[in-house]
Amino acid sequence: MIVILRENTAQAAVEKLVANLKTFGFDVHISQGSQHTVLGLIGDTGKVDIDQIKMLECVDDVKRIQEPFKNANRKFHPLDTQIKVKDAVIGGGGMTVIAGPCSVESEEQIITVARSVKASGAKLLRGGAFKPRTSPYAFQGLREEGIKLLLEAKKDTGLPIVTEIMDLSQLELFDDVDVIQVGARNMQNFELLKQLGHSGKPILLKRGLANTYQELLMSAEYIMASGNENVILCERGVRTFETYTRNTLDISAVPVLKKLSHLPVIVDPSHAVGVAEFVAPLSLAAVAAGADGLIIEVHNNPACAKCDGMQSLTPEQFRQLVRRIEKLKSALE
Amino acid sequence: MIVILRENTAQAAVEKLVANLKTFGFDVHISQGSQHTVLGLIGDTGKVDIDQIKMLECVDDVKRIQEPFKNANRKFHPLDTQIKVKDAVIGGGGMTVIAGPCSVESEEQIITVARSVKASGAKLLRGGAFKPRTSPYAFQGLREEGIKLLLEAKKDTGLPIVTEIMDLSQLELFDDVDVIQVGARNMQNFELLKQLGHSGKPILLKRGLANTYQELLMSAEYIMASGNENVILCERGVRTFETYTRNTLDISAVPVLKKLSHLPVIVDPSHAVGVAEFVAPLSLAAVAAGADGLIIEVHNNPACAKCDGMQSLTPEQFRQLVRRIEKLKSALE
Amino acid sequence: MIVILRENTAQAAVEKLVANLKTFGFDVHISQGSQHTVLGLIGDTGKVDIDQIKMLECVDDVKRIQEPFKNANRKFHPLDTQIKVKDAVIGGGGMTVIAGPCSVESEEQIITVARSVKASGAKLLRGGAFKPRTSPYAFQGLREEGIKLLLEAKKDTGLPIVTEIMDLSQLELFDDVDVIQVGARNMQNFELLKQLGHSGKPILLKRGLANTYQELLMSAEYIMASGNENVILCERGVRTFETYTRNTLDISAVPVLKKLSHLPVIVDPSHAVGVAEFVAPLSLAAVAAGADGLIIEVHNNPACAKCDGMQSLTPEQFRQLVRRIEKLKSALE
Amino acid sequence: MIVILRENTAQAAVEKLVANLKTFGFDVHISQGSQHTVLGLIGDTGKVDIDQIKMLECVDDVKRIQEPFKNANRKFHPLDTQIKVKDAVIGGGGMTVIAGPCSVESEEQIITVARSVKASGAKLLRGGAFKPRTSPYAFQGLREEGIKLLLEAKKDTGLPIVTEIMDLSQLELFDDVDVIQVGARNMQNFELLKQLGHSGKPILLKRGLANTYQELLMSAEYIMASGNENVILCERGVRTFETYTRNTLDISAVPVLKKLSHLPVIVDPSHAVGVAEFVAPLSLAAVAAGADGLIIEVHNNPACAKCDGMQSLTPEQFRQLVRRIEKLKSALE
Repeated sequence: MIVILRENTAQAAVEKLVANLKTFGFDVHISQGSQHTVLGLIGDTGKVDIDQIKMLECVDDVKRIQEPFKNANRKFHPLDTQIKVKDAVIGGGGMTVIAGPCSVESEEQIITVARSVKASGAKLLRGGAFKPRTSPYAFQGLREEGIKLLLEAKKDTGLPIVTEIMDLSQLELFDDVDVIQVGARNMQNFELLKQLGHSGKPILLKRGLANTYQELLMSAEYIMASGNENVILCERGVRTFETYTRNTLDISAVPVLKKLSHLPVIVDPSHAVGVAEFVAPLSLAAVAAGADGLIIEVHNNPACAKCDGMQSLTPEQFRQLVRRIEKLKSALE
Repeated sequence: MIVILRENTAQAAVEKLVANLKTFGFDVHISQGSQHTVLGLIGDTGKVDIDQIKMLECVDDVKRIQEPFKNANRKFHPLDTQIKVKDAVIGGGGMTVIAGPCSVESEEQIITVARSVKASGAKLLRGGAFKPRTSPYAFQGLREEGIKLLLEAKKDTGLPIVTEIMDLSQLELFDDVDVIQVGARNMQNFELLKQLGHSGKPILLKRGLANTYQELLMSAEYIMASGNENVILCERGVRTFETYTRNTLDISAVPVLKKLSHLPVIVDPSHAVGVAEFVAPLSLAAVAAGADGLIIEVHNNPACAKCDGMQSLTPEQFRQLVRRIEKLKSALE
Repeated sequence: MIVILRENTAQAAVEKLVANLKTFGFDVHISQGSQHTVLGLIGDTGKVDIDQIKMLECVDDVKRIQEPFKNANRKFHPLDTQIKVKDAVIGGGGMTVIAGPCSVESEEQIITVARSVKASGAKLLRGGAFKPRTSPYAFQGLREEGIKLLLEAKKDTGLPIVTEIMDLSQLELFDDVDVIQVGARNMQNFELLKQLGHSGKPILLKRGLANTYQELLMSAEYIMASGNENVILCERGVRTFETYTRNTLDISAVPVLKKLSHLPVIVDPSHAVGVAEFVAPLSLAAVAAGADGLIIEVHNNPACAKCDGMQSLTPEQFRQLVRRIEKLKSALE
Repeated sequence: MIVILRENTAQAAVEKLVANLKTFGFDVHISQGSQHTVLGLIGDTGKVDIDQIKMLECVDDVKRIQEPFKNANRKFHPLDTQIKVKDAVIGGGGMTVIAGPCSVESEEQIITVARSVKASGAKLLRGGAFKPRTSPYAFQGLREEGIKLLLEAKKDTGLPIVTEIMDLSQLELFDDVDVIQVGARNMQNFELLKQLGHSGKPILLKRGLANTYQELLMSAEYIMASGNENVILCERGVRTFETYTRNTLDISAVPVLKKLSHLPVIVDPSHAVGVAEFVAPLSLAAVAAGADGLIIEVHNNPACAKCDGMQSLTPEQFRQLVRRIEKLKSALE
């Protein structure tokens, strides 16, 4: 960490500050410039609150050299993390496809879709039981009943299931859920993250609408610092000035997150773009960019979906897309 | 609600769609254009899920005319809502100043600051007990102990208190809290909003980092639809490409939200800009733009604050600012 | 175009407005709702200024149905436009790679790079002579001399050249340039666009930092409306809150622009991400998303580049990337 | 400037780099950390291209301490710059109001508006002759004729005039124009800025849609480095995800730019918000935030304006607003 002092800080003040910084446990190197004195803090600065240093007397600015995340950092864990969920493995160079409807709507619907996406090559089933909706008047999901139906589909097909938690009070319902999803709006729900850190279950952590790569990794760090290393990062589009698409898929997130972290990185093209006809090109782009997986919305009858029908593929569209993904993946190897 | 059909939709398909739309309870007017047929839906469309209509066969696009919020809508409630919190009133043309430290740190600290801001003219005391921090390694607040210390300060000064809830599990600790704050990161924590709707307490709802005016009002609607009309909207800066300031204060939010809604609108200049020296000009700007109140960070010793010291005013700076706010407010009347 | 009237507009006012709208040459259909009257304007509304209609008395809002661009619109020109530049063809399903240094620096440099990228498979040579730089103190390009050196490289290798124009006064220097580039900062330099519309030369039009798809297409329309149909659209990243990458590559632009328009769409991964090691994954992603071409920065010695060395590939890195692009492209067919 | 080396850079490599840096004319101080070596560059680093340093071998990152602008920097010019335009003075603590229509439409129109805004207290007349419009089919301004009409209005009222230049080829028409406006879309039209630097005339430089404070100041620096110190900075709203308003007024730009620079800072509330009814609260906010002036659109008949009628005030609305501005300004002193 580098500490830049205000111009013309007196020698005595510099010495006082250095003494103060040493109480944090750092060695301090002093570099006297023509206008600015610069201090180099040596030691473990990864867990220091940068704002605390900025507030010290005579300090003009502070620059980090080390990233503020440890457990998620590839520097300290060079090999890819692979997360095993029953027979599926996420991370480490494969391409794991997760598919299913936005919302669980009925036993028939979820079992039909589950069988279909399994036949097409999906390794996990997704489906929303608790649904975060902008409007209190929109369908809020089947909730507890939705979880039960997902478990039926799991029993029927053998596919492990991924579904979203919206509040800690729902956690006990997730005992038999294989992967717990934290939605974009909850990426910085820190109390939730801490508790999920104690659960040991794989967590699919979606990037928030306006959160940076570093913030996403810090949220992963919340989970990991509580003891759970099984975090799957998910890029699902960020919010920009462009309104033609639902969100703007930040495809660079794939190679950047994989450089910064050893955690698996998957992409959700359905929520990113919000329009079914663009899901295929974005899925292929994500594969080409090096994603470890995709999470894709598939509905047996998109026109009647209770939620997000516009961005859902039909089972047949999904089947064709998986073929193209497989072909592309082979060409990349 | 206006429904635009795909080009060259056959007459039979139009008739089928109209019949379908009537099952939603609408009257439907048909306008046949040279290329497009347009349907006008007449009836209460405020609570309809626009995506459901978009998915119907032959539909190209759907445009709302009515806003999707009811309880928060000024159209149905033309007079300003005034929220009474002990002796303070928020809304209806006054200027209510809320002040206090970012975090409660000790009994001495919170009582010192509380007495000081009261003497300067603050009507409510703010202080964080549960602190949402990007890093799991940063100070997380005194939590339960912080609430107790706030209640001590309330007893000592008579000032009602405002403090943030981060999770529903904390709700029972808020029995004697006067105003419950929902932070920007929780603006779309819908389960939390629903429960706060049952609490009856005034809720200070902060706008999310990348949320629109309409989304903020829809989150207010979640609280109000559960029976709690006491919602205070708070603009606290949005995230943009500009990094010199912590966030970008969207000052237009003040007159726009006050036009769209009858709810009080306050501004948090401290979090918006993140630098103490800019808090005063932004506070004055908010007053001039018509805000109903301000929530300002004040710390007895910003350089030693455990959180957000950089944006905290000293008690003396705050005292002077309140004088200027009062002078400005008189000039505007 | 749909015109929504203010609530409770009197019948006489409606009639007056309808008469007024008919003077614009429209047929008008009236749809009387319970609260709102809605007018459908029938006729060629593509060239109408929407703001003019919004200002008419009693008008609450206006919604377009037709896109406001004609020449660039795929609806009126369903087949892909193919732009021939000597032996190269851009558009129509191929993958044309353009490569070269950010800045032309010397005859040796540009000829070395030109030969090298040609050998690796590039079909056009790029190189900056006039350089838009944020700082007046940064290298501004070799300017006229740079154009001459590019023409030398063209003579030597036979590669057609692409280079950026910054001001109309430079236009006469571009006589032998094959493709004129309009940079992101000039995307809405409308006087420049109009004149380039008269030039007949292929124009590579880069999307602005914060411009929508529609605005990009309207800028293409400026060129096309002046008689030049040879416009190549280029996605080069937009500006967001994320600062780790130079810009945020909006990969969705590829399939969306190709749906809305018949013009070729290429991607500039080098400027989008700004870091050499991420250029390859983004290039592959662009190919997978359906781009018609790529424009990639290659420098014989990136560490000594006068501009943008951080994002330049070495000739060897470029050679390997082209191999991967070709393999991927085959797999997609 | 601080140069952070890659981890574990060998001593020999450090020495080679230091020797290299000294050739740039710097003194170099070395600070050896446990993991990173950090170099402090001492000397005039203000004009160095940071990217050049970043590319040097072994360099991990470079951080600036000095701002990269000199002429515009308040550090080297502590007193406010005041720009005199006939009897008007912009900067230095006053409040100069500029007003007029978006577009000059006719002699009668511009003279009527000019007389009216003068009577209400405006000190300069604005009016567009060359109009940057997103669509080639929208009204493009009266162009040369518009300049003539503005000069008529100037003769009639004595008000100095402000109007926008769109291309260098128009410059000779601006001989009698008092203040030349550079629009948001041209903020980084560097060739234009350089030439305007040679003109000596006051330049009103609008912030681009997605440009940072520093980029705005660097564009001012282009003008100033060519010898013209008369630059007026103008905040006119930036582009965000919020679409209810035309742009998002960044009110913090006022105090921040005034801290960083000695140049006058004015605000354009009309373009920022795009809706007439919000122009007054935003104007008052700008005054309260410390702006040196306002540029406000006024039209004698907004409903018939050829451009931007939606955001224009009527002469009477403007008159009342100026009264409120004056009252507010007195209260702030």
